[in-house]
Amino acid sequence: MESLDALFRPRSVAIVGASSDPNKVGGRPLAFLKKAEYAGRILPVNPGASQVQGIAAFGALADIDGPIDQAIVAVPAGQVLAVADQCMALGVKALQIFSAGFGEGADAARDQAALARKARAAGMRILGPNSLGLFNTADGFFGTFATALDGAWPKAGSIGVATQSGAFGSYFFGMAQQRGLRFSHFVATGNESDVDVADCIAFMVQDPQTRLIVTAMEGCKDGRKLAAALCAARDAGKPVLAMKVGVSQAGAQAAATHTGSLSGEDRVFDAVLHGCGAFRAASLEALVDAACVAGAGPLPATRDLLVVTTSGGIGVLSADEAEATGLGLPPISDTAHTDIRALAALADGRNPVDTSAGILADLGLYARIAARALDDRPFGAVLCYLAHIARNPAHWAQLREPLYRLRARHPALPFVAVLLAPDGIAADLEAHGFCVFTDPSRAVRAIAACAQHGGIDQPSAVPPALPARVLHGSLATESLAKAALAGQGLRFAPERVVRDADEAAAAAREMGYPVVLKIVSPDIAHKTEAGGVALGVADEAALRDALPAMHARVLAYQPEARIEGFLVARQMIGGVEVLVGTQCDPVFGPVVTVGTGGVLTELAQDVATRLAPVSAGVARAMLLSTKAGRLCQGYRGSTPADIDALAAQIAALSEVAWANRATIAGIDLNPVLALPEGAFALDALIVTHGDSA
Amino acid sequence: MESLDALFRPRSVAIVGASSDPNKVGGRPLAFLKKAEYAGRILPVNPGASQVQGIAAFGALADIDGPIDQAIVAVPAGQVLAVADQCMALGVKALQIFSAGFGEGADAARDQAALARKARAAGMRILGPNSLGLFNTADGFFGTFATALDGAWPKAGSIGVATQSGAFGSYFFGMAQQRGLRFSHFVATGNESDVDVADCIAFMVQDPQTRLIVTAMEGCKDGRKLAAALCAARDAGKPVLAMKVGVSQAGAQAAATHTGSLSGEDRVFDAVLHGCGAFRAASLEALVDAACVAGAGPLPATRDLLVVTTSGGIGVLSADEAEATGLGLPPISDTAHTDIRALAALADGRNPVDTSAGILADLGLYARIAARALDDRPFGAVLCYLAHIARNPAHWAQLREPLYRLRARHPALPFVAVLLAPDGIAADLEAHGFCVFTDPSRAVRAIAACAQHGGIDQPSAVPPALPARVLHGSLATESLAKAALAGQGLRFAPERVVRDADEAAAAAREMGYPVVLKIVSPDIAHKTEAGGVALGVADEAALRDALPAMHARVLAYQPEARIEGFLVARQMIGGVEVLVGTQCDPVFGPVVTVGTGGVLTELAQDVATRLAPVSAGVARAMLLSTKAGRLCQGYRGSTPADIDALAAQIAALSEVAWANRATIAGIDLNPVLALPEGAFALDALIVTHGDSA
Repeated sequence: MESLDALFRPRSVAIVGASSDPNKVGGRPLAFLKKAEYAGRILPVNPGASQVQGIAAFGALADIDGPIDQAIVAVPAGQVLAVADQCMALGVKALQIFSAGFGEGADAARDQAALARKARAAGMRILGPNSLGLFNTADGFFGTFATALDGAWPKAGSIGVATQSGAFGSYFFGMAQQRGLRFSHFVATGNESDVDVADCIAFMVQDPQTRLIVTAMEGCKDGRKLAAALCAARDAGKPVLAMKVGVSQAGAQAAATHTGSLSGEDRVFDAVLHGCGAFRAASLEALVDAACVAGAGPLPATRDLLVVTTSGGIGVLSADEAEATGLGLPPISDTAHTDIRALAALADGRNPVDTSAGILADLGLYARIAARALDDRPFGAVLCYLAHIARNPAHWAQLREPLYRLRARHPALPFVAVLLAPDGIAADLEAHGFCVFTDPSRAVRAIAACAQHGGIDQPSAVPPALPARVLHGSLATESLAKAALAGQGLRFAPERVVRDADEAAAAAREMGYPVVLKIVSPDIAHKTEAGGVALGVADEAALRDALPAMHARVLAYQPEARIEGFLVARQMIGGVEVLVGTQCDPVFGPVVTVGTGGVLTELAQDVATRLAPVSAGVARAMLLSTKAGRLCQGYRGSTPADIDALAAQIAALSEVAWANRATIAGIDLNPVLALPEGAFALDALIVTHGDSA
Repeated sequence: MESLDALFRPRSVAIVGASSDPNKVGGRPLAFLKKAEYAGRILPVNPGASQVQGIAAFGALADIDGPIDQAIVAVPAGQVLAVADQCMALGVKALQIFSAGFGEGADAARDQAALARKARAAGMRILGPNSLGLFNTADGFFGTFATALDGAWPKAGSIGVATQSGAFGSYFFGMAQQRGLRFSHFVATGNESDVDVADCIAFMVQDPQTRLIVTAMEGCKDGRKLAAALCAARDAGKPVLAMKVGVSQAGAQAAATHTGSLSGEDRVFDAVLHGCGAFRAASLEALVDAACVAGAGPLPATRDLLVVTTSGGIGVLSADEAEATGLGLPPISDTAHTDIRALAALADGRNPVDTSAGILADLGLYARIAARALDDRPFGAVLCYLAHIARNPAHWAQLREPLYRLRARHPALPFVAVLLAPDGIAADLEAHGFCVFTDPSRAVRAIAACAQHGGIDQPSAVPPALPARVLHGSLATESLAKAALAGQGLRFAPERVVRDADEAAAAAREMGYPVVLKIVSPDIAHKTEAGGVALGVADEAALRDALPAMHARVLAYQPEARIEGFLVARQMIGGVEVLVGTQCDPVFGPVVTVGTGGVLTELAQDVATRLAPVSAGVARAMLLSTKAGRLCQGYRGSTPADIDALAAQIAALSEVAWANRATIAGIDLNPVLALPEGAFALDALIVTHGDSA
């Protein structure tokens, strides 16, 4: 972490290309540093001036007397490499490259990578190129040219912002600043030749000023590093509110496996964020809203919300939104309800607690009702709906003091006020520890975002020591794939590979009808499309018809396919069809996916994904978070499937995917039939990195 | 409609219980009418005063000289009935009852119903009891005591608000007024003893001032009337933006049929709103946002959106949201793209069109780039992302004039600006025909809400003449239900009812193995739970074992069940399992539901619902809007099912549900197996209103 100190809190900063015009890129950081009363040494470098914006300047970097913690490079792209070389020679610890255009085009990308390698060897960290810069309010360090600061100077606070795109991040900053949020750091990583968003998150996890981390990115180069930073934040109790743009599946690749088609880049990103305990916001505003609640004070300790409302309709609306976002509304006790009725005869509801409009005669009752409900049982957060009360001076005068006394009595609890208020009263509420919203639904969503997510945790991003699970030999046909996986503890339905109708009939006689017949060919990945699957073959006559017909269909579909035989298996009826698969994600490496399998796989889109490997416990939780998993627990009186056996097989497969990540691109077991007597894969497909599918 | 004229635009209004205190319920409407310079006669009734708030008062209603169009009753609940009687005697055409508490408790409900009946007979319409009143800005009629008007006097405009709950509606009004929206009418219907939200919507459909209708309700008494009003608005080209609270399924009834469990009150409401072309907002703010776009000027003629952005990241974010809300982003042509590159070398993207930050030197380029894109092809709406531009006076000075000229050149197109702007500039943009947002995602969602929904239209709420489809005789067992429905054109899989193992074996021999065996009992609705279904019975030995075992299981499950025999059917393998069902909704009457059937029914929650009856065309569209329907079109190389046959059967079943609505509570055909050779129901259950299930 030490090496990022020179970036975020340098004791001295050189500005190469310092300008006396505070509106130019080379003049802005100087003006900002002066405005912020930065206590370190400011070292403008400008060959033609003895001082810049009133600060003594140097003709060249080499002229500077004393150590340079950080250098900011605000020169044309063509001069950047030379400046960077000088910095390395002078022992500069951190370099910020504002210059745009440096990382675009093939030459630029090559230059950028070469520079990053050289700097790493010299012990110099680089932010950028194409970075908007960073600021650190605690130390007054403003090494940035962001125009967003012109109209909106940040107040010091506990929110750290780590964004990839400067434009995106500064618009977020503008929205959040308009809402009165307070910041510890802001950093835009730009092209990420060295320092990336994950580094900045890891720095903020260590930073004592930062209580809450907001991050925005379009992509990521090292997924496991990001996951590790998110897990570290989660383990340190610092919420991460994240935004990832580029959800649209329009451009998703034609995947070689079902699992691949269900685990597109964005899905995996989503799974990692959730698994590592980060909240993923769907919009900039949702990000601001969540930061507003988290930044206002204490975080919700549980997902139990108390809603106190003056309107039944708004109460119902809030309850709907709470249910949709996974918050609970535990009811208050009979005793508390009776006490509240004694305060206000028309008050109703256990939670939401509706004070009724009957309290308009004495609005102090609102606070007394809320107080009684809060004393009844523990809650994680309180939502106070106050309608137009603050617009009527007489009403507000009755409510203000009792409400603030109540809030002060519960310092560890987040209070959110929802109302139409004049600006002055909204600010007054905020000053007294309320987070203020106008829309009740947005308030509930923001509370939910800040409450513990209660999902399936990814224990860590880096896998523990694993049993040896490397697969050897060819995996090119279903039967070879099954044999290899069977050696790793995975189970398959009884089946036999045959060469002709006589062998097929003998096998079927032994297994009993009906049977399933499938083609065996290393050239056919998706047998159903090729006409290579016949279900419910009822008797020997049908089997003897089916075999040559299938042979002909498959050759018509793909004339050069090598046909090595047929697979005969007992047709199983009943059970739950589960997809179990793995996929080697380009950003995050192997991931494991489980969910609804069989014919419905693509349509159901009912899957859970996590970084591989997973334990059997995580596998079980993943399974039970899907509809397929809930079916396995038994439906309409049926016997539950053996979920433990299935979870153990999912865990084993995830370890196989990790151990063979260098060779295996994806594995599909689809379907795995989950039955009371165990889980049996009916099909297996392994795609290697070499396959062109 | 004429009778509602006296409510919304009376030429004279009596206020019974008029008060000289403008803060009291009886004083507020008087003060508002004076403030609004209402041109009709104001007739305060107060036995103790010769004038009230400066207006000549009457001692009693009977003292009034001349016709009374409307009377507002602001007296204690106990006096309301007497006042209403006087009003009827005097020929008052419309009565508003502000008094609360009148419609609660058994006596009050009875009194309210009796009053409504009497008034109807006398030709007097009633708004309330427990109504917050109404206002009509065009005529300056403010018959309301809403405190929301204290801080926020409405500007005249084209938005009509019809809300059931006064508290909910007035908070919406407060939010919308704060955003600068303009209103034609506002009405809160309260207890709806006579006039309901549907009546008010129908009035606003006819009203020339109203272009856009906003409605909010917690429930509805006459669903078909509401549907008819929504269809009338749709057919008149007036968008309806609706909010229905009470989504939570927590309290949903334990339903007697699968269809019932999938068609809870809220689901049916949702289906009706969508079928009748209304937009259902999920939050108050979404309602305000949509009204903001619709109220600003022209509506989107198509769902094709053009996004012009200064930031690539915000472009991606907007594209994601557009995809999620069903808007299209058609790309501009190569020629237009080339022309735009000639204007700004770094500009990129076909739609979103990213101007790049390179235009900061001359922001007039923004308008020229947008103009070129707009000339390239037709769009339904434009979203202009302007970041911080309006916060920098020099930048805004460059952009303002060209942007306004561009907007004026496209008067029929909605323009939405997304930016961080000082209040003055936001107002300036609005004055020049822009709708202004800060959050890009919210802007996209609001545009989508106002664009034609493109769903499955419910042609009308009232069914056309239908063939006679009344069912006769008992429907209590699967086989009787199947026989009755077969007479209406529905098709079932080959099967036979047998009494013992010998008859079963004979039937199975004829059909071929494997077979399905099911219990036949009028006392067992859900056979699977009762152990009354055996799938995949493979041969005669298995059949002879299965029969007595099933008999024993069913009796263990329900000892008094009358067992009339067993049903033997050919086990069908393959095909798509579809649920087709009907449900008699307490609010809307018969509805028809189609979607994923079989074991997955409840978990998949993949259904489309519409008011019954539906045509085969609507049935087909419903089916294809579900995943089950898309599976019927063929999946992974399989032959498509006969969708036309299935649609015809859905339509026939929906007509059966309508024709037998007095007797039949619900019908489940689950599953209907959709095959290339036709659609065959494998099961049938009819529940009558008399059944206690």
